[in-house]
Amino acid sequence: MAGNSFGQLFRITTFGESHGVAIGVIIDGCPAQLDLDMDFIQSELDKRKPGQSKITTQRKESDTVQILSGVFEGKSTGTPIALLIPNEDQRSKDYGHNVDVYRPSHADYVYDAKYGIRDHRGGGRSSARETAARVAAGAIAKLFLKQQGIEIFAHVTSVGTIEAPNLESNDLSALLNIREENIVRCADPATAHEMIEFIDSVRKDGDTVGGKISCVIKGCPAGLGEPVFDKLHADLGKAMLSINAVHGFEYGSGFAGSELRGSQHNDIPQPKAPDSNVFKTTTNFAGGILGGISNGMDITFKVAFKPVATIMLNQQTINAAGEASEIKGKGRHDPCVVPRAVVIVEAMAALVLADQFLRNKASII
Amino acid sequence: MAGNSFGQLFRITTFGESHGVAIGVIIDGCPAQLDLDMDFIQSELDKRKPGQSKITTQRKESDTVQILSGVFEGKSTGTPIALLIPNEDQRSKDYGHNVDVYRPSHADYVYDAKYGIRDHRGGGRSSARETAARVAAGAIAKLFLKQQGIEIFAHVTSVGTIEAPNLESNDLSALLNIREENIVRCADPATAHEMIEFIDSVRKDGDTVGGKISCVIKGCPAGLGEPVFDKLHADLGKAMLSINAVHGFEYGSGFAGSELRGSQHNDIPQPKAPDSNVFKTTTNFAGGILGGISNGMDITFKVAFKPVATIMLNQQTINAAGEASEIKGKGRHDPCVVPRAVVIVEAMAALVLADQFLRNKASII
Amino acid sequence: MAGNSFGQLFRITTFGESHGVAIGVIIDGCPAQLDLDMDFIQSELDKRKPGQSKITTQRKESDTVQILSGVFEGKSTGTPIALLIPNEDQRSKDYGHNVDVYRPSHADYVYDAKYGIRDHRGGGRSSARETAARVAAGAIAKLFLKQQGIEIFAHVTSVGTIEAPNLESNDLSALLNIREENIVRCADPATAHEMIEFIDSVRKDGDTVGGKISCVIKGCPAGLGEPVFDKLHADLGKAMLSINAVHGFEYGSGFAGSELRGSQHNDIPQPKAPDSNVFKTTTNFAGGILGGISNGMDITFKVAFKPVATIMLNQQTINAAGEASEIKGKGRHDPCVVPRAVVIVEAMAALVLADQFLRNKASII
Amino acid sequence: MAGNSFGQLFRITTFGESHGVAIGVIIDGCPAQLDLDMDFIQSELDKRKPGQSKITTQRKESDTVQILSGVFEGKSTGTPIALLIPNEDQRSKDYGHNVDVYRPSHADYVYDAKYGIRDHRGGGRSSARETAARVAAGAIAKLFLKQQGIEIFAHVTSVGTIEAPNLESNDLSALLNIREENIVRCADPATAHEMIEFIDSVRKDGDTVGGKISCVIKGCPAGLGEPVFDKLHADLGKAMLSINAVHGFEYGSGFAGSELRGSQHNDIPQPKAPDSNVFKTTTNFAGGILGGISNGMDITFKVAFKPVATIMLNQQTINAAGEASEIKGKGRHDPCVVPRAVVIVEAMAALVLADQFLRNKASII
Repeated sequence: MAGNSFGQLFRITTFGESHGVAIGVIIDGCPAQLDLDMDFIQSELDKRKPGQSKITTQRKESDTVQILSGVFEGKSTGTPIALLIPNEDQRSKDYGHNVDVYRPSHADYVYDAKYGIRDHRGGGRSSARETAARVAAGAIAKLFLKQQGIEIFAHVTSVGTIEAPNLESNDLSALLNIREENIVRCADPATAHEMIEFIDSVRKDGDTVGGKISCVIKGCPAGLGEPVFDKLHADLGKAMLSINAVHGFEYGSGFAGSELRGSQHNDIPQPKAPDSNVFKTTTNFAGGILGGISNGMDITFKVAFKPVATIMLNQQTINAAGEASEIKGKGRHDPCVVPRAVVIVEAMAALVLADQFLRNKASII
Repeated sequence: MAGNSFGQLFRITTFGESHGVAIGVIIDGCPAQLDLDMDFIQSELDKRKPGQSKITTQRKESDTVQILSGVFEGKSTGTPIALLIPNEDQRSKDYGHNVDVYRPSHADYVYDAKYGIRDHRGGGRSSARETAARVAAGAIAKLFLKQQGIEIFAHVTSVGTIEAPNLESNDLSALLNIREENIVRCADPATAHEMIEFIDSVRKDGDTVGGKISCVIKGCPAGLGEPVFDKLHADLGKAMLSINAVHGFEYGSGFAGSELRGSQHNDIPQPKAPDSNVFKTTTNFAGGILGGISNGMDITFKVAFKPVATIMLNQQTINAAGEASEIKGKGRHDPCVVPRAVVIVEAMAALVLADQFLRNKASII
Repeated sequence: MAGNSFGQLFRITTFGESHGVAIGVIIDGCPAQLDLDMDFIQSELDKRKPGQSKITTQRKESDTVQILSGVFEGKSTGTPIALLIPNEDQRSKDYGHNVDVYRPSHADYVYDAKYGIRDHRGGGRSSARETAARVAAGAIAKLFLKQQGIEIFAHVTSVGTIEAPNLESNDLSALLNIREENIVRCADPATAHEMIEFIDSVRKDGDTVGGKISCVIKGCPAGLGEPVFDKLHADLGKAMLSINAVHGFEYGSGFAGSELRGSQHNDIPQPKAPDSNVFKTTTNFAGGILGGISNGMDITFKVAFKPVATIMLNQQTINAAGEASEIKGKGRHDPCVVPRAVVIVEAMAALVLADQFLRNKASII
Repeated sequence: MAGNSFGQLFRITTFGESHGVAIGVIIDGCPAQLDLDMDFIQSELDKRKPGQSKITTQRKESDTVQILSGVFEGKSTGTPIALLIPNEDQRSKDYGHNVDVYRPSHADYVYDAKYGIRDHRGGGRSSARETAARVAAGAIAKLFLKQQGIEIFAHVTSVGTIEAPNLESNDLSALLNIREENIVRCADPATAHEMIEFIDSVRKDGDTVGGKISCVIKGCPAGLGEPVFDKLHADLGKAMLSINAVHGFEYGSGFAGSELRGSQHNDIPQPKAPDSNVFKTTTNFAGGILGGISNGMDITFKVAFKPVATIMLNQQTINAAGEASEIKGKGRHDPCVVPRAVVIVEAMAALVLADQFLRNKASII
């Protein structure tokens, strides 16, 4: 109930603080006999790790993952998989400044209000460092989904007011290659270039900027998601909103869809081909989900991230006594969180899908 | 796991189909000794019930709620509260048309795909009629929150492309009065008038339209919400996304916030007055939530609803065999769902807050 | 969390007080397409209902069950099944005596201590009347298990110090017939006769007596039960201990097994027949469960019930103010609970098995 | 759902195999600001660790516990506490013999049946080594309970047919001292001597023997435990039955109580002293629990352990192909599990109490 677990049948529990000994995760409910490709898990972590490029924080963490349990001769055994990521570069002295002073738009104050005690070092548990554990677990969920023919792809579609055009390809492998060729992780090279220039200029200003990530899931069978409360998009929404700095979630037609008429918005089912049992609609305003249950079409959603709260500029604030104070960001921070968050979005989506896949096994026997 | 429960400590489980005997809800975890004001509970249901006005469905349901358990001499006893709402006006013959034909953008197909069986009458379990049970339970959550000084107010802030201006008052009782004076439930009378005209014209076209609802929560103490996955806004987001027809959720600065810089977006804490322990910031881009935990400021969020899928126009579709078919809406449907959804949004918000309020009791002993 | 739900995937939530409007249950997670044989469900309730014979309470309740949801054309749809059992014979005036006086060995005092409010009528929520809801839900679990070839049989094996000999038959249908031919529900007719005489004499004394119920489950496949905490016997134990008046649970060799040596207690696996994949051991001290997981052998356990607390004799006690008081049982009560509890034991066992059966579907994909 | 978590609000999740890298546990929901006395936690582990005496296994494990998260300056912060216990003495070669051969009365076969894969080394996840993680977590629960004035004491009350007399003292500290002065952990020195002699003779025979542990909890306030399914004794029962080798659980009067009459078994409440609000009964057949809720009296229960399955004698068995085979115990095993299990029983009891203590905070607001 203390909120550090996610999922029901494919369930993770994360632990660890930004500047503690280690962070980690237990995955309880990964089906047995899954090949655990450690290289893949590590490569996913590498996409989230700090210090990747000039537009990410310069904190140095190798984020090397260790498996402590649940694996035998390279395969999952059905028992809990524990993954450990030691913290290496804990420059905690950078954080003396927020012992008694509340950083604006950070969680310092609310942790004090809730618990009466706070690990101030690097934000403690409220740090986005926790998401490394999610990425490690999500990588295992991806391996499971891949076995079922389900693929997930996310990329940065806006930074500030710079927006990428819609994707024109359905080849997720090709898009992944394009995305990984630029440091902002946008699958449109021209926009990517523009975004990088902009983030770099913001960084030089000592400032930060927000952005958006779009995600598409291909190969998902019809039937995933549970009515009434655990609708597939409700679980996806919660998963995304639980990521640090996320302020909005929409799927399919999203906010824009609320401006349309039913006659414009309804997706018209197409007659099935003689040799096919696949459900298809002419449009996909539904984002692949009807009544909370996947219909077999592409699942699409978008996630909005606020600008990183830590800026390298002087700001007014208060201290723990409630008195006026001033603070200037220290430490090593991201000028824009979305390039590193792409793989977090994918990981959380994978965890939702894996969970709903297993839950759906109980729908009919 | 089958998804019909919501909440952990203040937990509801709903049941019932659109054209079955009854719908209802069990509330497990309502604290003892709460005065259960039945008139208030019924008045909340009245705001959601069909047949209220020319811009809602003409289905006639009194939605009279009965309490079956958990109450003794007008007070909650700590045991499960069961509420029953009999279905009265089940004109099921209107639904013969969707026995074998899938209505576009409805859940007919996915229920067949998931369960291999489907109660087609009025959409069965996928009907928004289920939300009456949520409103009844949410009314009890509101009574509990009121005791704690927490108030919730939602209203319609857009229909199609018609947008209401921002609220200028902090007096929720006054706003409630204004809202209830018009049938679209917008707290800005001029915009309300425009919205009503528009919905009525859409209705006459046999069409439907989407809209948005905004919500504000006042009086919430700092400390509600659990890191990491059960952040207050993540639970609110899931709650809202679980409501029929919702396609998007944002809180605080939302999607627009992703376009800003940190220096614009950070909310600056104000020194506390000598006699106060209240946390205040100059702006409230955070929407009252930092790191997933309430900070004591107003909690604000917005919810986007797609247009109702049932339209009174001919549409192409397919039948259960996958062959081309045609369908035209029958039954009695809403041209726009948001006027009746206002109280559903409030109910789900109340359920989240009540749950997180109880959960927070375990943070420090 | 308030404890009125049981099971994870096949999950029930019960509600209702002894003298309220009705009791009932929601079953969430019953797989779709199960034939819901209403006659069977009612016949199970008939085995638990009061007023069956001279050795049960004379309260008159037909315990007629109504289905409110989750069923379409006689089959489960995968949505929540709500069952309602109206209370008919609520002679609440019998209970004026315990408004302010705590009945010895009843829950009156602890409900006051926990909630500060108490529905005293017939014991309110603490009454064993709640178990009718379990029996109704358990009947549906039995229908599901029967489809999988799993059968459950319980009977009374002791009353006071009268003990039945071990069963000599493996034919559960035959045993069921024998059991139902006597009012104490012991499958050994000679012992049954003795038990009935004894209970009747105890009843005439205004007293009550305890007893034990043994249960066997046949046809359970290997693999049900989850390490580490949700071992099959741990879930069975919790299920049984949650039944009113139960004070003990043992499975397989039980308490007596703790006196043995390993060389006596180990069950020796037998070579498999060429045409068989069935696991068999020479003895079954394990009670069909190893490491918390079913091994395919008969599952056996025993449950101990204390004597009913309500006796028709004067007893010293205290009132709500803590002062000395006197009380004499009123109302209509069972002199011995085990004859009516046999079907409750079976119902709870069925709920555990159905739940673990569904959970096991996620072990390997 | 995969069963590796226990508790709701004070919730643990364990991981690790007997011969893997490490075992460990995450505690999610420990209230903030608790002093985490590491010496106490280690001392509890020392009572469970192997190699303590001639009557325990000779495997050498220091069972040194490391804290990875959730603690700041010696206090809990409200975030998950991760504890790690590296495995040191993994003499896995001792286990080559059970790769393809199923050890009688061990879980080898059922893991294969359930998962189709098995970490055979030392029994993998089914090994009682997992309970070290429970003891570490239970130690933290004990620290929390101690703060609330709740104390737990267990000791060995039978080995084979040797039974200890009932305790004559209420001074748990004194009893603890007596218990720790002998290697069998019985608080009656004369019986302890007899038990030790017997276990040693059994060990020399290459055999094993079962036993029983009794537990008393003092200082528990009235009100803990939730009706209907999460009764305090039902949760205790499940907790105990989840411990390796446990075959039975009873509380209060237990199995013997089922032989009594109501007039013998009812506990008569005593008038309260003028200056007291404490509930007392003349007898305590209820074991401190009425209707599933603590009444403030001592909570008492007893747990039965089967003899350890690994014996140093030749046994018939089968291999994975189902063919006849023979096996003789290797490795280093306990001749009797109860001396080391005393602290496991206490740990599980502490986890149940801590959880129900927090849950009870939501009963009345």
